[in-house]
Amino acid sequence: MKLGRLNHIGVATPSIEESIRYYRDVMGATSFHKPFDLEAQGVKVCFVDTPGENGTNGTQIELIEPLGPDSPIAKFLEKNPAGGQHHVCYEVEDTEDARKWFEDMGKRILGPTRIGAHGTPIFFLHPKDMMGQLTEIMETPKSGAHWSN
Amino acid sequence: MKLGRLNHIGVATPSIEESIRYYRDVMGATSFHKPFDLEAQGVKVCFVDTPGENGTNGTQIELIEPLGPDSPIAKFLEKNPAGGQHHVCYEVEDTEDARKWFEDMGKRILGPTRIGAHGTPIFFLHPKDMMGQLTEIMETPKSGAHWSN
Repeated sequence: MKLGRLNHIGVATPSIEESIRYYRDVMGATSFHKPFDLEAQGVKVCFVDTPGENGTNGTQIELIEPLGPDSPIAKFLEKNPAGGQHHVCYEVEDTEDARKWFEDMGKRILGPTRIGAHGTPIFFLHPKDMMGQLTEIMETPKSGAHWSN
Repeated sequence: MKLGRLNHIGVATPSIEESIRYYRDVMGATSFHKPFDLEAQGVKVCFVDTPGENGTNGTQIELIEPLGPDSPIAKFLEKNPAGGQHHVCYEVEDTEDARKWFEDMGKRILGPTRIGAHGTPIFFLHPKDMMGQLTEIMETPKSGAHWSN
């Protein structure tokens, strides 16, 4: 498998509204996508763009807020009430191949491959098998285009 | 202040050697810089490249390993023995302006501005003031070139 783009870093937050103000007013971000609910994953999501080199798209920030007390990120926020870095997401050409690659290495995959926030297949790997990082693997959108909303 | 590139994500590790094997053999990374000691900060450092869009340089992974038990990341590794996401680093055009920007907002800056791993001025901001993220601010290298070693 070949390492692809760092598509986004997942940042847990108690409030996407507050995070948007933070990234706009404190960090100087200018490009925000429309927040939406990813009910299957129990989170509200909002992507913030960061610039890449030479006018390309950079790694995005994926803000995730729990949709309720049973959200998979509720426990993370109990430990980190202000929010914080939650996961990293790397692109691959083919998630089916990648899934087999990691399985053959005995890496624990968290649940089935599903359609992620960018509309392509994704899966997550257990942080204990990934040097402490909850790792999302995402198929590069076929158009080569950046996700937009 | 305008948000610049996500230059790198800082990843703490108990062993850079082990992390290099991990990023090479598990994640499929192909471009590694030479590890070096950043004694002033008590860490050994190694940058791993990730690809950006259209052949540009993407966000790097900065592996950091403690140089000794008094290293600022020793405590992080006690809590996270396998390592994990430690900080995020965004570029700005001018660190002096950026420092004033954050100071005027009452954000706690951790120590003086110093020369960072890419040879340009950097400073760190307190995670409690930055929505749970230890945040490094780094001046974009003047050449516009990517750091190399």
